[in-house]
Amino acid sequence: MSTVRVACCQLATNVEDPEESAARTRAAIAEAVAGGAQIVVVPELSNSGYMFRAEEEARAAAVSADDPLLAGWAAEAAGGDAVVIGGFCELGMDGRVYNSLALVDPDGVQAVYRKLHLWNEENRWFVPGDQPAPVIDTRHGRIGLGICHDIDFPELPRGLALGGADLLAFPVNWPAGDPVPGGRPILHSLATTTAYLSKVFVAVCDRCGVERGAEFEGASVIAGLDGSLVAGPVEDRGEAILYADCALSEARDKRLNGYNDVFADRRADLYARALVEEREPAL
Amino acid sequence: MSTVRVACCQLATNVEDPEESAARTRAAIAEAVAGGAQIVVVPELSNSGYMFRAEEEARAAAVSADDPLLAGWAAEAAGGDAVVIGGFCELGMDGRVYNSLALVDPDGVQAVYRKLHLWNEENRWFVPGDQPAPVIDTRHGRIGLGICHDIDFPELPRGLALGGADLLAFPVNWPAGDPVPGGRPILHSLATTTAYLSKVFVAVCDRCGVERGAEFEGASVIAGLDGSLVAGPVEDRGEAILYADCALSEARDKRLNGYNDVFADRRADLYARALVEEREPAL
Repeated sequence: MSTVRVACCQLATNVEDPEESAARTRAAIAEAVAGGAQIVVVPELSNSGYMFRAEEEARAAAVSADDPLLAGWAAEAAGGDAVVIGGFCELGMDGRVYNSLALVDPDGVQAVYRKLHLWNEENRWFVPGDQPAPVIDTRHGRIGLGICHDIDFPELPRGLALGGADLLAFPVNWPAGDPVPGGRPILHSLATTTAYLSKVFVAVCDRCGVERGAEFEGASVIAGLDGSLVAGPVEDRGEAILYADCALSEARDKRLNGYNDVFADRRADLYARALVEEREPAL
Repeated sequence: MSTVRVACCQLATNVEDPEESAARTRAAIAEAVAGGAQIVVVPELSNSGYMFRAEEEARAAAVSADDPLLAGWAAEAAGGDAVVIGGFCELGMDGRVYNSLALVDPDGVQAVYRKLHLWNEENRWFVPGDQPAPVIDTRHGRIGLGICHDIDFPELPRGLALGGADLLAFPVNWPAGDPVPGGRPILHSLATTTAYLSKVFVAVCDRCGVERGAEFEGASVIAGLDGSLVAGPVEDRGEAILYADCALSEARDKRLNGYNDVFADRRADLYARALVEEREPAL
């Protein structure tokens, strides 16, 4: 069984210095690729930091998808035939500012996704996306994409898994101080149960550090098909690169035993229609 | 804020002695009601045990919904104006054997639900249900119902919460030996994340003990709206009654802060249609 090396680069980005944040992110991508990573995940808003004070500050840090920022990620990806997934503060062609991620490979930007579920004051500086979270068929497997608070809407990761993803990649900026049932961040329980429920790999890449008085959880982990943690957590909430060698293609076998299969056993005809919006088809 | 006392009766039922299992369950209901419980949950298959060797054995233990078994639960419920939810091995009017639960109050049986997702060899002795998991409006709040492996299909608990449930009650018989990420049973992570994601209370009532060589997890817990464990786990995997005083009506407020609401923020028009089956409407 061949494996794919997945890396999560947990970084202390800094809203006070977007350029330094972007440089730190690119350096981490380079280090992960040098470490053999074929899929590299970096945090949400890696080029801007998180704790904005006003829309103008987010706008000043925002770049378009054809900015040298993402070309730089592609150049680092080319060093190891890697795929890079990372969050960035995006200035859209429409002039709006989005909390986005890009999936980049040595050939350039392959996908941009704009966060659907904005958290708290993000609503002051970002416009939510209007397109579904995608599954991208990459050179190293099928990767489902979401950003941070998106993972709190179980329809989204479940939909990505049903859409054929082998790995779900979630760049996040997770505030510290959430309830810690059983002594660990809720984000770890979300990663492990999301993996277990759909028999899919899950890579959550968090930031760390303190920014304008707000501490971040530093809760990056990679979860395996049975809901175990195959990499992480980082013990001291500091910067770190997590690696896991994942047999991604095993995610395509949804059988649990001679009788059960996590997808085939679904009773989709008996689930609540409220899970998806019932709309009249466009005429 | 008024609270409702919820109890989970973790019991060592025994497939070798269905009558004793049923008597033990009724005694536990009586004890919980005497302890002030207004909602009492007992395990899956509480009148039969779990490790059957053949369909005939399950059939021999099965009773219909108008059996004195459930009338006995109603009599105990009347001792404290309580609601009882428990699993039972059901002989349907159609002659089939189901893995079911009943919701009973002092007036008798209010609902019977038949497990939709059968686990492993259960497929040899049970027929799966063909009706959705229900939400029942009881004298002590709205209770969403599911059985054991049903919780592994996130569409089901999410649908119950969207259907207005304040509390999700899951009678289970959970085999020991599942992966234990972070040192606790996956069932605890499922209970806490299910509660957290939909801001709903979750009561999981497991059995315990060893039956024909199979050990059960004894992982009963009650989870609160923020994903914390408000009762349990039982430390020694033995018999116990867990109690939690739950402000069930708080589950109807889905707001998280001034911007976010776990239901209003859903982007149902952008979730995968595969979550529910698209069927042609009957003509």
